[in-house]
This record gives sequence, structure tokens and C-alpha cells, in this order.
Amino acid sequence: MKALVYGGPGRREWKEVPRPEIQDATDAIVRVTAVTICGTDLHILKGDVPEVEPGRILGHEAVGVVEEVGASVTGLQRGDRVLISCITTCGRCRYCRTGSYGQCLGGGGWILGHTVDGVQAEYVRVPFADTSTHRLPDDVSDTSAVVLADILPTAYEVGVLNGAVKPADTVVIVGAGPIGLAAVQTAQLYSPSHIVVVDLSPTRLDAAKQFGADITASSADEAGRVVREVTGGLGADVAIEAVGVPETFELCTKLVRPGGHVANVGVHGKPATLHLESLWIRNVTITTGLVDTASTPTLLRMVEAGRIDGERFITHRFALDEMEKAYQVFENAGDSGALKVVLQA
Amino acid sequence: MKALVYGGPGRREWKEVPRPEIQDATDAIVRVTAVTICGTDLHILKGDVPEVEPGRILGHEAVGVVEEVGASVTGLQRGDRVLISCITTCGRCRYCRTGSYGQCLGGGGWILGHTVDGVQAEYVRVPFADTSTHRLPDDVSDTSAVVLADILPTAYEVGVLNGAVKPADTVVIVGAGPIGLAAVQTAQLYSPSHIVVVDLSPTRLDAAKQFGADITASSADEAGRVVREVTGGLGADVAIEAVGVPETFELCTKLVRPGGHVANVGVHGKPATLHLESLWIRNVTITTGLVDTASTPTLLRMVEAGRIDGERFITHRFALDEMEKAYQVFENAGDSGALKVVLQA
Amino acid sequence: MKALVYGGPGRREWKEVPRPEIQDATDAIVRVTAVTICGTDLHILKGDVPEVEPGRILGHEAVGVVEEVGASVTGLQRGDRVLISCITTCGRCRYCRTGSYGQCLGGGGWILGHTVDGVQAEYVRVPFADTSTHRLPDDVSDTSAVVLADILPTAYEVGVLNGAVKPADTVVIVGAGPIGLAAVQTAQLYSPSHIVVVDLSPTRLDAAKQFGADITASSADEAGRVVREVTGGLGADVAIEAVGVPETFELCTKLVRPGGHVANVGVHGKPATLHLESLWIRNVTITTGLVDTASTPTLLRMVEAGRIDGERFITHRFALDEMEKAYQVFENAGDSGALKVVLQA
Amino acid sequence: MKALVYGGPGRREWKEVPRPEIQDATDAIVRVTAVTICGTDLHILKGDVPEVEPGRILGHEAVGVVEEVGASVTGLQRGDRVLISCITTCGRCRYCRTGSYGQCLGGGGWILGHTVDGVQAEYVRVPFADTSTHRLPDDVSDTSAVVLADILPTAYEVGVLNGAVKPADTVVIVGAGPIGLAAVQTAQLYSPSHIVVVDLSPTRLDAAKQFGADITASSADEAGRVVREVTGGLGADVAIEAVGVPETFELCTKLVRPGGHVANVGVHGKPATLHLESLWIRNVTITTGLVDTASTPTLLRMVEAGRIDGERFITHRFALDEMEKAYQVFENAGDSGALKVVLQA
Repeated sequence: MKALVYGGPGRREWKEVPRPEIQDATDAIVRVTAVTICGTDLHILKGDVPEVEPGRILGHEAVGVVEEVGASVTGLQRGDRVLISCITTCGRCRYCRTGSYGQCLGGGGWILGHTVDGVQAEYVRVPFADTSTHRLPDDVSDTSAVVLADILPTAYEVGVLNGAVKPADTVVIVGAGPIGLAAVQTAQLYSPSHIVVVDLSPTRLDAAKQFGADITASSADEAGRVVREVTGGLGADVAIEAVGVPETFELCTKLVRPGGHVANVGVHGKPATLHLESLWIRNVTITTGLVDTASTPTLLRMVEAGRIDGERFITHRFALDEMEKAYQVFENAGDSGALKVVLQA
Repeated sequence: MKALVYGGPGRREWKEVPRPEIQDATDAIVRVTAVTICGTDLHILKGDVPEVEPGRILGHEAVGVVEEVGASVTGLQRGDRVLISCITTCGRCRYCRTGSYGQCLGGGGWILGHTVDGVQAEYVRVPFADTSTHRLPDDVSDTSAVVLADILPTAYEVGVLNGAVKPADTVVIVGAGPIGLAAVQTAQLYSPSHIVVVDLSPTRLDAAKQFGADITASSADEAGRVVREVTGGLGADVAIEAVGVPETFELCTKLVRPGGHVANVGVHGKPATLHLESLWIRNVTITTGLVDTASTPTLLRMVEAGRIDGERFITHRFALDEMEKAYQVFENAGDSGALKVVLQA
Repeated sequence: MKALVYGGPGRREWKEVPRPEIQDATDAIVRVTAVTICGTDLHILKGDVPEVEPGRILGHEAVGVVEEVGASVTGLQRGDRVLISCITTCGRCRYCRTGSYGQCLGGGGWILGHTVDGVQAEYVRVPFADTSTHRLPDDVSDTSAVVLADILPTAYEVGVLNGAVKPADTVVIVGAGPIGLAAVQTAQLYSPSHIVVVDLSPTRLDAAKQFGADITASSADEAGRVVREVTGGLGADVAIEAVGVPETFELCTKLVRPGGHVANVGVHGKPATLHLESLWIRNVTITTGLVDTASTPTLLRMVEAGRIDGERFITHRFALDEMEKAYQVFENAGDSGALKVVLQA
Repeated sequence: MKALVYGGPGRREWKEVPRPEIQDATDAIVRVTAVTICGTDLHILKGDVPEVEPGRILGHEAVGVVEEVGASVTGLQRGDRVLISCITTCGRCRYCRTGSYGQCLGGGGWILGHTVDGVQAEYVRVPFADTSTHRLPDDVSDTSAVVLADILPTAYEVGVLNGAVKPADTVVIVGAGPIGLAAVQTAQLYSPSHIVVVDLSPTRLDAAKQFGADITASSADEAGRVVREVTGGLGADVAIEAVGVPETFELCTKLVRPGGHVANVGVHGKPATLHLESLWIRNVTITTGLVDTASTPTLLRMVEAGRIDGERFITHRFALDEMEKAYQVFENAGDSGALKVVLQA
């Protein structure tokens, strides 16, 4: 079969590799029908994620059809159409038993396209298949579902739920890439009164408005001013960091009101400065987190009920064997305007 | 009357000043019967809290008897014995309406001995007296009650409740001063399986054991080792910072397990480094906060039921006009072993 | 001034009475500019609420302008436009300190038009005015605001919040009168996937659809069938009782899934049968409650942000001195189709 | 092997039956080393649980040693000492994914000694063994652990956690059988200020005092009086029903304060009357539930840390083949004073 193989920093190839086989009784083999590329895949290709070894098939966001199941898989059978979660869940460890699948101690967590072969391929072996996939209703399309593999639960759990967004809140979201936009979309499930989005790019701010932001700001100063304006000077109830650099995190801690929440979603490579000399007295709650995908069933019901539109993230579509081209478009998101690119078999 | 008056950095005096009078209809005048000194008073005397102006009477922890009430005070009358909360509560603003009295926008918050005259005096004017005092049952002594003015609710709310201590948790408390010990005492209300206390002073670690800690550590390395030992390598469920310097805060973020809570109680004068490059993926919740004293009724019921012993914090007792001597003993806690010193009229 | 005075069971009169005066330092006198009639007023007139004495001015839902304030009122001044909450809040008792204003022990709770004179009058004395009124922004009209006095917070707190409605839930609401419709409207703040409304009246079911219900049922059997259909046979996540008779309460306990919530909002005059022989094993949570109006600031921000439309409840408008006529229209809601009738000065 | 076999209403026999074998890849065969009898077993023997068929081996509370595991069991191996939970958990269904194992839709829930053969036998087949057993630390004895199979998590989850017991609460527990006493013991994990126990039997009330109750009452009237006394007339914060008849449930709804919780733990055979005519306005929360055993790891850590003593429930000990005698002692608890009887191999 064909797959996108990591060849070490700066190197990737869509090439012929052996088709995966069942290794454990809890595995399933899934034929990929829709797959997308994540910003994290670009980080891996830059060499920023050193535990990914050359030869690894990348990718952790896909939809497919079950081809074969291991002896102890009871919830799936050949022919089932499934969403493959970006997080693998052993279902048995302390963390999985409490819904914290991202912290799985039993061999799961983020492993697909990371420590085991991923989904940018014609077929993929999915470990712990019973607990790491979601059967799809007929009326949810592959392309609606594929954004539920990572970006929607990430934005919802790590941004909106960790940030404890409530009706009438003022929510500020720093960063309007796919994750920031997914936060704009899922924050609306809790009916904030204002969603303020901060980004440098006018194009992205336009996208944010289309996704439901009512206020945008293109600088830290402007963000501070507009947040003060709509909150009577108090600050935002919730600030969601969706960039991953120290400056945007620190901006969030400045924009939040006393008693508010800062929810970090961004992937950080460097420490930030935490201004405890002013924050110690302000009753601020700061959260970090990898997605658990525990909310995927909820989000899937929302897609099925027509209350979340997954398709709107998809700006470019390709055939599966146009993988190289899709990567190029996604890498040049600044020019191409790409949010999510989908490849379909 | 006599009062302890701040005279600018490094200067204090127990001297004759005018007796306070009712200014607002919501005021009460209280005759102080028991009062204590807080570490924050020492900070003020060092000049670290510049908004305190020379001439200010210090102190925010006291018990007394109501002498006179303003026209609109309905819940108190002359002769009532009351605990004066360190936090003043207007009872009407957005924050007070949701129990966040420490963030009061209506003229309250931490004002006693800070922006208005405090309780280290024979008499004190208590603003918003109905909502900022607690009537004391006959069977609760002045000296049991006075620790409910600040240290017990601070440790309980900002440490134990913000840290979400639960039965069977492993709780690590960094710093075994009065606040740290109050965290040891109030953490036990939620039945953790282990309380690990970290401090450099062997005397304080001994005190921690007497207050209920089952494990102590005298260095960061030792703390890491013992926490790993009792948690199967995972880390503490809750880490409570009760010192107020960057190193101890950063230690807390290292000792906590994925999915755990870091509750900052310490008063900080400098920023800390937040290692988001490792924390972003660990689902950590970090909280800060000034006490609200919303838990004071709960703690008072525990004292009344004999389930919290406030007296055990009190190492030294003085007459009210020995204020200077009491300050000296408290300032030299290293030698005197002072935890809380109480002055009684 | 003129007021609607209760004359004992079956008797009411819009007549001249003395204008109210400040009695306590915490009172305000408010000139009523918009007022409405509640189903509870009709119960009083039937004699169902015996603690209401003849001579009492009725009404507990109004908007007005502050005419005069008592000595200790600090948050209001003459000329302020305010919403008068149906619940009076002393702000000082155990319940008020935790937001449970409806259970106020300090002289508040539901008193207006019940144990003290109410708002169906040209002027009203509002006790504890600082904590029992909400200043209105200029851009919120009297008629948008008046539904925030009772029905919206009642449906939201006692139905939606007590019922713990969450995104993607299936919510069934039994009863499509004003409270049931307000539950339909406010449940949407938490983005359920389905809102099923049950009522006998086709007109009310039509109204429910216009307020946002996606499914309606006109009998208990039909309700059971449609709830099973959309929940894969499990039952509703939340069932909200908005009628107040045993049958509808018992229907709610049948429609709810294992692990779900039954939120009773209806005012009951008789006991219901609780089928513990089947419910004991089903992990059901049942809640009851009088409104606290603690959510009014939240709801007011939603109205201000244009996210809740209060006006849509108002089917009939009258001048204030058409009080008798307004009562007649409201009493004959079956014919008149009245939801809320508003009288404006 | 020998096992206790149900022979239809009124008939049981300890007799030779075939030893169980692995049926599914997720099964384990466990050799029973300690087992106890539950009040529910007596109900079955009376014919009250008709879905139990003659020929069924009874029992759902045991500790044992793993003898053999199915192909897909990864967390257990031959020789592991395990607690067998009374609730079987598929680990994959909607309910299991959120910790509501008691409501398992995937073939689990309460099945042992109910719809499949149980643990009152020399060997037992445990379905879904990875998620339905807990490996025991060496320092926790069989007899300490066996009470964690059912009564401790039942009292803790369905009584204490559902009842939301908090520090300083007044908790009333109606019924002082094993479950009621387990509620007394586990309520203390949240440090209530008062635990009031109501029962008709002086012996049981003595036991309640030994388990930690500070107040007892032997009638409904006395219960009402003492609860009012310690709560200033308000009522209990939490009322836990641990009997299972309408009268005790209705008593709980009378003893609880406005805003309080009634947690039903008792197994009911008849409906109760719910006095909505007085409860509708009192903000009461009523919960029901079958245990999930999601708290077993927490409770096991408490036993391991010496903070819960499981042994104290055990009043009688027998060899495994004294099963008939053990049943007789347990059936005559009134005379024998039996709380839990344990049989050990």
C-alpha cells in the first residue's frame, strides 16, 4: 500500500510500504477513506518531535472502514464506518477509567503517527480499536467527521471546557488558525455574549468573524482595549491561548479578569513568564492539556443534529494519492488560505 | 485609644490615636478583645506594600465586641461578640454576589490595615459590618476564633479548595509556616491518603508532623523522591505553594502529576518561570487567589464541633498593650518558634 | 396612587391607595413603568395562597425608575432605571451569602405581592433595594427586561441549570405555558441536540416550535415514543416539569434515561407518586426549587447582547390603568392566546 | 467444585457443580479466597428478584486469586490477587466511558450472582476481567478488601457522593445496617460536623456510635427533634436513606433542609409518596442509584493507607464450606448481631 513516510527532519515521501496486520487481539485494521494533515505533522517534519523515528507513517486524523478486527474486539466488525480518534485509549488504566485518555498509561495516548504508524496511508492498524474509534451514523459524511478526530475535541475540551465558558461570558481567543477557529465554533455551544479573536492576519480575522466571533483585534494593545470596553474594564471571563508562544500566553494572563480562566491549547516549545507578582491576588485559573477526545461522542451528536458544521473547516480537497500536493498546500497556508485539507480515497 | 501605627518603612509605634467613629450607616465600631499579627504586616513594615500610607493602623485579624452600629446594620447589636474577617464584603457587587469577596468592587476586599485603619488597636471601625463579621457562639473562645480571621480560610480556600483535594489524594505542601500548617490541618477535612510537607527548617517539619503530615522532606530532591515513592512514580494529585518565591512555585509544577492541581497560596513579589514546554501536554490546573473568607462559616462550625483546633497555632500570648513585644517575638520566629502570637485585651 | 388590590378569594380591584414610603434604610421607592401578571397571581386570586391577606397589592414582576432611596442604599440613586426582581434578597443570611436568595432567612425571598405590597401599582416600596434590583442598560427596553423579573430566571435556574442541560443533550419539557417556553428558550444556551416539548394544546406546541423546540408531542404515549426514537431507546438526558400536577411529574420520571435529571419547575398543590421500585436503580437526580434570581445578571447580559429576545413572550400590551382588562385577557389565555401581558405607565 | 446454588424461592444448596471455564477472550477464572453474603442474596432467596433463575450460583462480593485469563486480558495474570467488583464493566459503552459502570449497556452492570453465576463458589468466571477486578496490594488482607466489593462503594457513591457531603455538614443516615454503617464510615471522609443515625434497634445505634456517629435517634420524631437542635431549626444538609421502605424515604425528605440533598441508597419494592406540595419550593435534590464501583480505587487507597478499616464490618468468620451455616447466621442478624459474615478458603 501507499503511505506518507517520515524520512527524518525535512524529509517525507508518499511511497509503497507493507500493509499493516493485526498484532494484538484488541487491534483493528481500517481502510482509510478520508484523512487530513495537522500542524503537528509539520512540526514533526521540522524535527521538533524527536521521538518520531524515520520510517514512521505520519497522521492522526482519519475516517475509514473496518477491514479486519482482532479476536477480542467486540464493538466493531468488518464494514463498519469509523472515526479514528487522534488519541488511543487502553480503557483500563487509571487515566482512561476517568476519561483522561490523553494521559493513558496503558499503551495509548497520542501514539498514531507518533510512536506507531499513523493514518496518512491506505490502511492503518488501530490499537485498542473498541475504545479508540467511533462508529459513524450514515448521515454524517466522512468530511464532516474527519475534523472530529482532533481539532474539534481539542478546541472544545482544552479550550472551552477547561476554560469553563458559560452563558454570557466574554471569551477572548488568541490565535485564529484551525484550532482557534474550532474554539470560536465550539465556544458558541455555551452561548457567550462576546467572542473576541486576536490574530495578526486580517484573513484569519475575517475567517474568525465567519465562524462566529463578534469582535476581532489585530494587536495586543487593541485586544486589551476592546476586552476592557465590552467588560466594563474588568477583563475577559475566559482567555484561550491557541498559538503556542510565550507572548500569546502572557497576553492571555493580562486579558483575563480576576476570577477568570486562562486555557492554554497551544503547543509550546519554550517556557513563558508567569507574572505571579500581579497574578497571585487575582484568583486566576490556568489550565493546560492534551486532548482526551472524551467529548467526541458529544460533538458527533452535534454534527449529526446539524448543530456543528465540520465541513466549513475544509478549504481544499484532494485524492488520497495527491498527498504530496496536499502537504504543499497546507505548508503554505499563508498563501493558500488553507485551514484543513482533506484527502479522500 | 492605643493602636499600632505604621510610620513608613521600618517604623511602627504603639501609641495614642483618636478612637474611631461610625462614618457610614453600614459601619460598626468593635472593641478588640483578641488580635494577632500576620506575615503581611511584616511585609508592610519593610515597605513592600506601598499603598499603605504612614499613619495607618495595621492588622486584619481580630475578635471583639460590638460597641456601636450604624443605622443600617441589622444583623449585629451592641454587645455581640464577633470575628472580624480579614476581607471586607460590600455584599452587593458582582464579585460579592458570587462569594468572591476578596475581589469586591464595592469598597471591600482586603482593606483593614491596608487602605483603612486596622484591628491592632483598642477599637476598630468595621465597614460593611453585617457582611464582614461573624457572630461567635459562646463555646468558641476568642483565641480559637482569631485564626479564622485569615490563616485558616486562606489555607482552606486558596490551598485546599482551589487545589480540589479529594479523599485518597497525595497532597504536597511546600512551606510549613503558619499558612502551610493551616493547609496541613484543613487538607485533612478531605481525607487525603498522604500529606507531604516540604520545608528547609527541621523545627517546622516537626510542627508539620504534629499538625498531621505523614511525610516530610527538607529539599526539592527529597520531595521529588518521596512523592514519586508514594504515588507509583506519577506525582502528587495536589501541590500547594505556601512560600511565595519562584523556586517553590516551580517545584510545585514539577511535583504534580498529569491531571493534578497546583494551588498557589504564597504572596509573590517576582515572576516565576512557567515551563509550558513540558506542562502544555500534562493537563495541569494552576490557581492563584486572595482569600474570600466565604468558607469562614464552615470553618467556624468545625471549630464549634471540636473538629478543628484553632488554639494549636498560638505559640505566644500577650496583653494588648504588649504589642511591641509581640511584634518582636513574631519577627524573630526563627528563634522564638512563633507561629501565631495573640494579644488579648 | 392606583394599585391592584386583593380583596380575598375571587376579588380584586384597581383602586386608589396610599403611596408607599421608605420604612427601612435599605428600602427604595420605585415608580413602576412596566409590569406584568403571573400565573401565581391567578392562584392567589383563587385563594390558593392563604398567607396573602386581603388588602395586599399584588404583583412581583416589574421595571421602574427609582424615586427615592433609604439612607443605607448605596448602589442606586433617584432616576436609575431598574428591574425589580421577584425575589427579595437580604444579602446577609446564610442562604443569600451562597446565592440561594429564594430561601432568604433575613426577611427576603418571595415577599412582593405576597407578604408585602407588590408591583402592580404606580409606585412600590422595594426592600433591600441594593441587592434586589438590577440597574438596566439604556439599550434594554422595559418590555425586554420585565420578563427577567421571574419567568426567564425561573425557567433557567430551576429548569435548565438544576437539570444540568449540556451540549448534545436531549431535553424534554413537559408543559408549554410561559415557563415551559422560557425553558425552551434558555435550554438553548447550552446547545442541546434535541428539545422535545409535550403539551395538550396544539397552539402551545406551535409556540414551542417557534421558540426553538424541534420535536413536539401531544400525549404521554407520543412523548415516550419520540424520546425513545431520538435517544436510541435510552430516554431523555433531562426532563423539565413545567405544569405542576402529579401526572406530568410522573411522566418526567418515566421519560428520563438512567443517569438523567428531572427538574421540577411546576408549582404543585398535591403529592406525586415516586416509583422508587423502578427508580432506585436508575441513578436519577430529581430537583425542586423556587427561583433565586441569581442568574438575572447573566440573563440580562444575554438580552443586552441580543442573544435572548424577551419581547417574544409579550402577546398583549396595555396602559397601566387598564389593569382590570389585562387581567381578563390573561385569565382567558386559552382564548386570547396570551403568554405575557405587559402594562406600561 | 462446590458452590451455593439457588434452587428457586426458599431453596439454596452448597453442592457440587462443574468448574467454570473461559468463555470469552476478556474473561478470567478466579479461585475464591474470601467471599461474603449480601442482603440482596436474601432477597433473591425470597423470590423477590425474579430474573434470577434456579440453578444460578449466587454471590457478588469476593476476593480471589487469578487462575486463568482469556486471550485479550492484558492487565491480569495467573497468580494475581484481586478484588472482584460487584459490578461488571464492559469498559466500552457510553455509560462505562463516563464511569457509570452500574448502567453498563455492553453486557456488564450487576450480573454476578444475578444473570450469570456468582462468587459463592470455589471458582468463578469473571467477565470483562481487566475492567471488573482490582489487583490488591500485599498489605491489604482479603478480609479488609472484601467489603470493598459492594458495601463500601455503595454507601460512598450512592450515599455520600450523591448526597454531596461537605465539611461541617449535618448528615442524617436513616438505617444502621451494614450499608448505613458504611455510610457512617465513609461520610467521615468529608468531615461533617454531625452524623445523626436513625434506627429502631438499640444494638444498631450502638454500632453506629462505634462507627463514628455522634448522635442517634430511635424514632422519626426523635430524629426530627435532634436534627432541628443541631441545625438551628433548618434541617439536615444531607439525608441518606439506607433502609428501602417508603416511610424512611419520606422521613428523609422531611429531615432535609431547604437546599439540601436526599440520597436514596435503599433497595425499594414499593413506590413512595413525594410531597411536592411542600417540596416544590424547597430546592431539594433527590438522587437514586445503583453503585458503579468507580470509587473502588479511591477506597482501596484509603484502606491501604490505614484510613478506612474494612475489618470492622466483619462480625463472623467461616470456612468456605461452611456456607450453609454462614447463611443461617446472616439470615438471623437480629439475634446473631451479624453485620458481614466472611467465608475464607
